[in-house]
Amino acid sequence: MDPSDPLAELITTYNELNASVVEELSEEPSPLEFMRYVSRNTPFVVRQGARDWPATKKWTAAYLREVLSGHEVNVAVTPFGNADAPTMAEDGELVFAKPHEEDQPFEDFLAYLRKQELDPSFRGDEEVRYAQTQNDNLRHEYVSLFSEVQKSVAFARVALDKEPDAINMWIGNSYSTTALHKDNYENVYVQVAGRKHFTLLPPLCQPCVNERELAPASYVRDGDGGTGELRLRREEGGDPVPFAIWDPELPGRRSTEYSHLARPLEVTLDPGDMLYLPAMWYHKVSQSCSEDGICVAVNYWYDMEFSGPLYPLCSFVRNVHHKSK
Amino acid sequence: MDPSDPLAELITTYNELNASVVEELSEEPSPLEFMRYVSRNTPFVVRQGARDWPATKKWTAAYLREVLSGHEVNVAVTPFGNADAPTMAEDGELVFAKPHEEDQPFEDFLAYLRKQELDPSFRGDEEVRYAQTQNDNLRHEYVSLFSEVQKSVAFARVALDKEPDAINMWIGNSYSTTALHKDNYENVYVQVAGRKHFTLLPPLCQPCVNERELAPASYVRDGDGGTGELRLRREEGGDPVPFAIWDPELPGRRSTEYSHLARPLEVTLDPGDMLYLPAMWYHKVSQSCSEDGICVAVNYWYDMEFSGPLYPLCSFVRNVHHKSK
Repeated sequence: MDPSDPLAELITTYNELNASVVEELSEEPSPLEFMRYVSRNTPFVVRQGARDWPATKKWTAAYLREVLSGHEVNVAVTPFGNADAPTMAEDGELVFAKPHEEDQPFEDFLAYLRKQELDPSFRGDEEVRYAQTQNDNLRHEYVSLFSEVQKSVAFARVALDKEPDAINMWIGNSYSTTALHKDNYENVYVQVAGRKHFTLLPPLCQPCVNERELAPASYVRDGDGGTGELRLRREEGGDPVPFAIWDPELPGRRSTEYSHLARPLEVTLDPGDMLYLPAMWYHKVSQSCSEDGICVAVNYWYDMEFSGPLYPLCSFVRNVHHKSK
Repeated sequence: MDPSDPLAELITTYNELNASVVEELSEEPSPLEFMRYVSRNTPFVVRQGARDWPATKKWTAAYLREVLSGHEVNVAVTPFGNADAPTMAEDGELVFAKPHEEDQPFEDFLAYLRKQELDPSFRGDEEVRYAQTQNDNLRHEYVSLFSEVQKSVAFARVALDKEPDAINMWIGNSYSTTALHKDNYENVYVQVAGRKHFTLLPPLCQPCVNERELAPASYVRDGDGGTGELRLRREEGGDPVPFAIWDPELPGRRSTEYSHLARPLEVTLDPGDMLYLPAMWYHKVSQSCSEDGICVAVNYWYDMEFSGPLYPLCSFVRNVHHKSK
């Protein structure tokens, strides 16, 4: 690569000036301390910051079943735990695979998650289920549990001077992975049960992630009454979805000429840990389960700031990279 | 211009997402409020924020003469008020003109400033003098006045968690102008006597300012004992100085293909006003005098944050622009 290539120099300069690990705090930051991280668009983890939340202490599988029994919940169903992920279609083309979504009685959904995780008689190639609607579900679908988490993360609410735009509940098992992507939100992620493994890249690594325009597709159930096998169906006339197809954990596959310059940050959250994931950071998330076979997390999305230079500069990186291709 | 040119799109997107005027506050921000501006790399002015500082109340010409009489001070001397400015040399080449620097008794320096400003018998084409050393002079050369300003600007000290790297005194008259340039500092500028007129551009306007590598030159006095006319002398073997040659107040001259996209912010400081000038912002500064014929200001430089994405992204804009030429 041309060492005077501005895109290469951007990524290497950033790496030189920034830590290669996620900073660890042992207690919550003050609003001002938090704002310093926001200002530097830099993540941190608060070890055991949510240790005393009722959720962290109470949300076992048995407790969730007790509270939510009789409720129907929205479940994302995929063959490989690949909801919202670049996926090879039967014709060999990479498409953006959306999950099949269906309502299931919560107790059935929970039993399925646990059986798949804990019962060795499960084959291992069964469909994968994940409650991950990301539509403020903790204040709607799961509102009966909402009093057991904080209404807002105090340091973020005060620093950003706003309430969260969405509070999302995530319930799954180790078979689900969230593919590398980014959100235009300041994100505080709280682990409740099980563990989450994050792989993080700053926004200016856009040239590394091999963003492509993928045709949208959705899983559907074959057969009458929607009870059969999952099949991936193209969405006729759907707009292509720009999406990263590089996976920093399989760095030699689907890479760009810049991917080798990326220096992904890795961090694992244990129950009670909190992660600040700054706006526009790329993140891939995999998970492992608690002893009772589930992984549960809650996250708070706060609207990001579009004024100032960062948002237009990140778009600029994308545009320069696009033009150079 | 190509509307899909990433540099043009960067500047226009920034303009769309940001205010076209400097925000005005009526009282000092809290450290957290200040940090929100730092985070957005966005200026503001606090009207009358330094109204109660002893300096604002006391620093008349008579008072300064009383305190500093008998002191020698460093004075920047130029023919046109053009210290550290792009200047046409006799051979027609644009060079970077540094001032002649000499020590003068403070009372002589002050009398000269005032006479030039107030006495109609002065011709108007005399040499221009400016005390502007920018080397933390208020804690050294002018330390006898230091107790009359704040040791640090409280909201900045707490927010940035550091003491100022330099506190500078500026004493001049309306004949001096500071050419458009930028500093790698967070800057809080406090007007004490007279008025300052700022023209501001955000760092990502680098493609607008026509940065060139200028040969360095210095004014020297002709004649024995250094008492004669000022002459501009090239520095033999001096490294070229990268410097903006576009002047947003003369927009048609020395422009680039991007200059017309810039939307300069204008703000005038009255005595007692404070300006937050974010790191790396381009600023041109001209001044007008108090009734007693001087313009006096103090500024606080705090080291900027080089970690995070902003510094490498601003270098990236420069590199992309340089490569496109």
